[in-house]
Amino acid sequence: MADRLTGGDSSLLRRINAAVTLRALRDGQAVTLTQLVGDTGLSRPTVEGVIEGLVESGLVAEVDQAQENGRQRGRPARWFRFRAEAGHILGIEIGVHIIRVVLADLTGHRLGTFARPVDETLDAEERLGAARTAVAEVLRKAGVSRDNLWAVGVGTPGIVDRDGTVRLGTAMPGWTGLDLGARLRRSFRCPVLIENDANLAAIAEHWQGAAVGMGDVVFVLAGLSPGAGSLINGRLHRGFGGAAGEIGALHLLGQEATPERLLSTSGKPLDPLDEAAVARVLTLAREGDEVARVAMDRFLQRLVHDVAALVLAIDPQLVVVGGWAAGLDDVLSPLREQLALYCLRAPEVALSALGEDVVALGALRLALDQVEEQLFAVDQPTSR
Amino acid sequence: MADRLTGGDSSLLRRINAAVTLRALRDGQAVTLTQLVGDTGLSRPTVEGVIEGLVESGLVAEVDQAQENGRQRGRPARWFRFRAEAGHILGIEIGVHIIRVVLADLTGHRLGTFARPVDETLDAEERLGAARTAVAEVLRKAGVSRDNLWAVGVGTPGIVDRDGTVRLGTAMPGWTGLDLGARLRRSFRCPVLIENDANLAAIAEHWQGAAVGMGDVVFVLAGLSPGAGSLINGRLHRGFGGAAGEIGALHLLGQEATPERLLSTSGKPLDPLDEAAVARVLTLAREGDEVARVAMDRFLQRLVHDVAALVLAIDPQLVVVGGWAAGLDDVLSPLREQLALYCLRAPEVALSALGEDVVALGALRLALDQVEEQLFAVDQPTSR
Repeated sequence: MADRLTGGDSSLLRRINAAVTLRALRDGQAVTLTQLVGDTGLSRPTVEGVIEGLVESGLVAEVDQAQENGRQRGRPARWFRFRAEAGHILGIEIGVHIIRVVLADLTGHRLGTFARPVDETLDAEERLGAARTAVAEVLRKAGVSRDNLWAVGVGTPGIVDRDGTVRLGTAMPGWTGLDLGARLRRSFRCPVLIENDANLAAIAEHWQGAAVGMGDVVFVLAGLSPGAGSLINGRLHRGFGGAAGEIGALHLLGQEATPERLLSTSGKPLDPLDEAAVARVLTLAREGDEVARVAMDRFLQRLVHDVAALVLAIDPQLVVVGGWAAGLDDVLSPLREQLALYCLRAPEVALSALGEDVVALGALRLALDQVEEQLFAVDQPTSR
Repeated sequence: MADRLTGGDSSLLRRINAAVTLRALRDGQAVTLTQLVGDTGLSRPTVEGVIEGLVESGLVAEVDQAQENGRQRGRPARWFRFRAEAGHILGIEIGVHIIRVVLADLTGHRLGTFARPVDETLDAEERLGAARTAVAEVLRKAGVSRDNLWAVGVGTPGIVDRDGTVRLGTAMPGWTGLDLGARLRRSFRCPVLIENDANLAAIAEHWQGAAVGMGDVVFVLAGLSPGAGSLINGRLHRGFGGAAGEIGALHLLGQEATPERLLSTSGKPLDPLDEAAVARVLTLAREGDEVARVAMDRFLQRLVHDVAALVLAIDPQLVVVGGWAAGLDDVLSPLREQLALYCLRAPEVALSALGEDVVALGALRLALDQVEEQLFAVDQPTSR
C-alpha cells in the first residue's frame, strides 16, 4: 500500500516529520503554524513543507479563522486541522444471533451503527452474505464510499489465528476452518483484522468502558458457551495459539454439568443456543419461582467456578462481566463474595459498560489501532 | 550503590562504552584489544581507556598468551578476559521442608550447592535462621566472602509483593505478612530479590530446563498445595497482585475434594504437608494396590482439572510439571490425554528437567538478571 502520509515519496525523514506533525494535530483542534513549530520541534520551513503535503493528500485542511485574529498585525496566522473525515473505519461483530456494524471516522468518532438479527442455523456463506449486506447498509446510510475505508476490524466467536482463520468455532455452522480473513478481504481494499469476540470485548472496555485506565483485565463473555478475553499490562493476551480464555470446556472435566443442564427447570437440558429460553428462566427466578431460582443458583455457581479459574490463573485487577449474564440480577454480588472466599487476592468485579455494542466497538478499536499506526507511528518502516 | 563499571565516575558515555566492551567479553573467551575494537565499534584509544578502568575495578584481567603469539612480529597482541570470579551471586529456596542455596559466579556458572531439610513446624525466625546458616555454609565451603556477593535471589511459597513482603503464605507458620525482603536484606549488602517459588521454577526451566527457547510456558508445581508460574512472551507473568497461578484454591469451589482427601486410602484425609504419606500411597499404587490406585486416579483427575483451568485461561505452548507429582509414574500420559480432550488447543506437556534444584536455580537466574543489568545494560540511568 502506498504510504498515506507521503504519497509516493517514502523518504524516512519526510515520513517521520509528517507523523510528528499529524500527531500534534490529532486531538482535532485547529492549530496555527507557529504552534505546530513549537509542538513538533521542527523548523518552520519543514513544517510548512509537511503541511503542504498533508493538505494535498487530504489529511489536513486549512481553517479560515481570519475574523478571530483580526486584531493581529502583520501576516495573519494560518490555522490547520486534522481531517478525521479523510477516511473511515469499520468494526464488525459476526455473532451467532447478530451482525453488528459500527462506522467511524479516523479518530474513532462513531458515525453510524447497524444491527441485524440472524438465525443461528445460517451456514457460513449465508452469514458472510448477511455481514456484507449490513456493511453496505451502514455505508449507504452514511454516504461513505467503500473505497474510503482505511481499516476493518471483525469479531467472531471461536479460536482465531493471527491471519484470520477460524481454527475452532463450534457456535456457528461451517465456521471451523473458515479463512474468514481471506473471505472478507475480497470485499475490502483495506486491511481486515479478525479477532475473537471476547478478546475484542476486553479491548473495548479498556478503551471506553468499565476498564479505562486498568491494564490487567479479564472480560468474561458469560453465556451458555462462556469465553473470556484478557489484557495483561494493557495489551491483549491471545495465548500461544489464540485460545487464551476459552474457559468454556472446564465444566466438561469431572462430570460437572453444562450450563444448559444447570439452568433447566424441567430436567431436560435447554437448547444451548436458545437465549430466549434462558431469559424465561431468569425472569421466572426474578419473579420468585422456586424451581427457576434453584436453577439460576446452579448456573451462578458454575459461572463463579469459571471466573475463579481465570482469576486464579491470571490475577487481574478487574473482572468485567458481559454477555447476557450481565442481565442477571445481582450477578455481581455472588461473584464478588465467592471470589473473595476462594481467590488469594480477589479482583474488582464490574458489569460491562458498553452493553450490546461491546464486541463491535472492540473491532472498531482494532481498526483504529491500524490507522493510528499508519498515521502517527514514527518508528515504523517506510514500506510494508 | 557506586557504579560497578566506572567506580565513582558516572559519565553516561563512559558507562555505555564500558558496558559495550564488557558485553563483547561476556562469553568468557580471551579476546585481543584489536578484536574488541572491531566488536565494539569504538576507537582503539577509547577501548584502551575503558579496558584500563575495567582492569582496575577487577572486572577484566589481562591474559598472558605470549607463547601462542610468538610468531607474531611487532608489538605483541594484548589479550583480555572477563573476570567472572570478580563477584558472586546466590539463589536460595526457602521451602516448607527444605532450605537450598546455590552459589555461582557472575556468568551464572555454579560453584556450590547446599541443601538442608527443615521441619514444617519451624516458625519464621527459625526458618530465617536456618536459611542464614545454609548461606554461611555455602560461602565458607567455597571460600567466598559475603561482601563479594553482588545479588541474591530468593524463592518461597505464597503470594509475594514486588518489594518482597509475603502477602499470603499459608504453607509455613508465621509467613503471611512477613517482610521477607527487609529481613534478608539485613544479612546482605547487595540487592535481595524475592519471588514466588512456582514463578521461579518457570524461569529456571526457561533458562536451562524443559522450556528452553519457549516463551509461553506454564510450570505446575504439583503437590498437596499446587501452584503455578507462567511466562508470557518469555517474561514472568506475576499478575496484578503477584497471585497469578495460585490455582490451588480452585478445588474449594463446588465442593470438589482436596488432594489430601482424594489421595487418602483410609477415608481419613492425609496431613496436607505429609509428603511421606503421599509417597507411600504412590508406592502402593505402583505396586498394584487397588485402593491406592483408585486414590491416585482421583488425585490425577484433580491435577488434570487444575492444569486444564490454567491452560484454558492462558493457552501456553508448553506445560512443565514439577514438584513431587513429577515422581508419579505416567503423570504425563493422562495429562496429555485429558488436555487433548478438553482444551480447544492442547499444549505440549513435559516433566521438569531440573528436579529438586528448580526453585533455587530460578532464584539464581533472578540474581543473574540483576547483575547483567548492572554490567551489560547500555540504556540504564547512570545512578540508581
